[in-house]
Amino acid sequence: MKLLVVKFGGTSVGSLERIYNSAKRVVEKLKEGYKVVVVSSAMAGETDRLINLAKQIEPLPSERELDMLISTGEQQAIALFAMTLQKLGVPAVSLCGWQVPIITDKIHTKARIQKIGVQRLKNLLQEGYTPVVAGFQGVTEDWEITTLGRGGSDLSAVALAYALGADCEIYTDVEGVFTADPRIVPNARKIPVISYEEMLEMASLGAKVMQARSIEFAMKYGVRIHVRSSFTDNEGTWIVPEEEVMEKSVVRAITLERNESRITVVRVPDKPGIAYSIFKALGDAHIVVDMIVQNVSHEGYTDMSFTVNKADAPKAEEIVRKVAQSIGAKEVVRDDRIAKVSVVGIGMRSSYGTAAKMFEVLYKNGINIMAISTSEIKISCLIEDKYGELAVRELHQAFIEEGEEVKVVNEP
Amino acid sequence: MKLLVVKFGGTSVGSLERIYNSAKRVVEKLKEGYKVVVVSSAMAGETDRLINLAKQIEPLPSERELDMLISTGEQQAIALFAMTLQKLGVPAVSLCGWQVPIITDKIHTKARIQKIGVQRLKNLLQEGYTPVVAGFQGVTEDWEITTLGRGGSDLSAVALAYALGADCEIYTDVEGVFTADPRIVPNARKIPVISYEEMLEMASLGAKVMQARSIEFAMKYGVRIHVRSSFTDNEGTWIVPEEEVMEKSVVRAITLERNESRITVVRVPDKPGIAYSIFKALGDAHIVVDMIVQNVSHEGYTDMSFTVNKADAPKAEEIVRKVAQSIGAKEVVRDDRIAKVSVVGIGMRSSYGTAAKMFEVLYKNGINIMAISTSEIKISCLIEDKYGELAVRELHQAFIEEGEEVKVVNEP
Repeated sequence: MKLLVVKFGGTSVGSLERIYNSAKRVVEKLKEGYKVVVVSSAMAGETDRLINLAKQIEPLPSERELDMLISTGEQQAIALFAMTLQKLGVPAVSLCGWQVPIITDKIHTKARIQKIGVQRLKNLLQEGYTPVVAGFQGVTEDWEITTLGRGGSDLSAVALAYALGADCEIYTDVEGVFTADPRIVPNARKIPVISYEEMLEMASLGAKVMQARSIEFAMKYGVRIHVRSSFTDNEGTWIVPEEEVMEKSVVRAITLERNESRITVVRVPDKPGIAYSIFKALGDAHIVVDMIVQNVSHEGYTDMSFTVNKADAPKAEEIVRKVAQSIGAKEVVRDDRIAKVSVVGIGMRSSYGTAAKMFEVLYKNGINIMAISTSEIKISCLIEDKYGELAVRELHQAFIEEGEEVKVVNEP
Repeated sequence: MKLLVVKFGGTSVGSLERIYNSAKRVVEKLKEGYKVVVVSSAMAGETDRLINLAKQIEPLPSERELDMLISTGEQQAIALFAMTLQKLGVPAVSLCGWQVPIITDKIHTKARIQKIGVQRLKNLLQEGYTPVVAGFQGVTEDWEITTLGRGGSDLSAVALAYALGADCEIYTDVEGVFTADPRIVPNARKIPVISYEEMLEMASLGAKVMQARSIEFAMKYGVRIHVRSSFTDNEGTWIVPEEEVMEKSVVRAITLERNESRITVVRVPDKPGIAYSIFKALGDAHIVVDMIVQNVSHEGYTDMSFTVNKADAPKAEEIVRKVAQSIGAKEVVRDDRIAKVSVVGIGMRSSYGTAAKMFEVLYKNGINIMAISTSEIKISCLIEDKYGELAVRELHQAFIEEGEEVKVVNEP
């Protein structure tokens, strides 16, 4: 039995017409001989509408009740989707998370999947039905409705694909994963096959195609994902284990993240425990810190910079200002006009010279680097925001459009 | 423990502001020392919106999927209601039908309640929570979502009240049950206490306050119901067992039903089996027939009239036309301009002269009676629609405003 889990995002089910088009895709897959499990998000806008209603009552509503409320969005979508499939002659049955069941822990609004019961799905498939499962939602062992947090529907799809031993197709509003954001780089190319590791870095670096969480899950359990557009018939991007990626580019893609702010603590006394006192306070406030830079000490003083999500920046600044006072730092400066540009590629592991080349490209374009961070398969540079698009275009030009000149060395 | 099931209809939860006002009423009940279980309908208009979406896909959508879809309306309402109670300082927990559970049979869109599990509700009440239960919905033994059909939320409330041994308050958009429709009879009075039997007759005779189904259930299980307005603080109408009704009026109320059509089969051969052949055909088409009148035979022929719901009338006419042809009747005539005016009261059982007085009132106003039907506690007359309001006003005047002159005889 060729089995496929096919997931449609909010825009792909955003109207009855779009549900119809998405249902037609399912019919095509069935005609190709696949058995299909559909996973659907809520109709675009519905979840936000419901959250907005709740926040009118109380800015911080009970998360248990919020899950009760917003899980209705997917429930409506799956019922309409199943009706549409039936209209197209396909026997279909919609299922809420609790009916599958998709069992989660008790952390409302960001629950983690713990267990998936597949017997009902298998029975339905056996009997010739196409199940349409509500994404984003689950149920606790004591029958409370939970939701999985941002990107939750992708996670539902990937987890179901794992549980059923199927591949996973994610229909979305982009054509796949590109070598750079096509709105910035007109020459950006769609990447036919990419590794989990690369995709994971890209998700953390500002590429919006899929949430890191679902990719982590897919990587852990080896679920092959095909991300593609619900508005064209073109093949999208396969996200697969590294060993299945034939062409291991040194640099697979260039990403740009503009959603961070930099906070600098100026003239900090250079003593043990200073960094600890700053980042302990931020950690206690559940603020995630990204890049950290500490300058070399000068006459017993140093400057310390770090980046945080823009939304967290005002709170982080306030916290750090208090710490700065207590440790005798001169001042705290916040800069929202920064961008993080990154090059990502698994080939980097076995290559050399990538960092040097990246710095060269930025230097030649007069772009100053404020901070650098690296992993095995990516290099990120913090730069002034106004140079963000220029940097991406030039790095794309150097690494991807003229990238053949950099050697890929698979064996030392 | 003084326990109360309090039900809010769609208009009482039609906006966040109305939910707030309804929640305030619950708070008042709690302050009076009651423990409260809330039952809520969907926000006014939501169920229709969802049904309309479904019908755009398919005029007769799968009833299983329709239940999946429309049950989200109540789910949204209970979550918002629980959040509002919490905002008012009341620990509250919303529960879907399947979470209570309210177990039903498998007849989607008009399921019947079979079993109610009360342990979870009792535990919640014990722990000081106010449960907010989704009306209108249940779940089958194999975990399929069902809905209870028209008036289903009232039924949920009455059934829960029975299961918990509580009284039931129904908040709605009218002040209670009146001696006649106040829009027709300005002198109509609110009835403080009425028996199930009278209420049941009134529901069948066009009074829209509650569906007959919930009253039947309440009567069967002795659940006391208080119907009242969610927009005023006034006491409404108590619907209770006959033995609790102190003042047994001969005529409690006058009703007007304008939603029927009359169909007459003209010059039917007066032979055995003719009536059977007509009403068998209607029964096979699931058409409910109300009043039936057969004139005395004249030269071997007779006329036969009956009334059906206006919505069923065209179909009924078509069916009867075929039968009429086969049995050699002369013609079939349909009349949509009819009305049924009724007087209702349990005192009628032990009284006399009510029918004569009713006919007298109609006669004195020049209103012709087309058909009559009676039960122990009501008399209905079919009249021309244009006289409907006049008849109600005059009967109200005669029986209710000047009603003291009619003797109430409780013992023979």
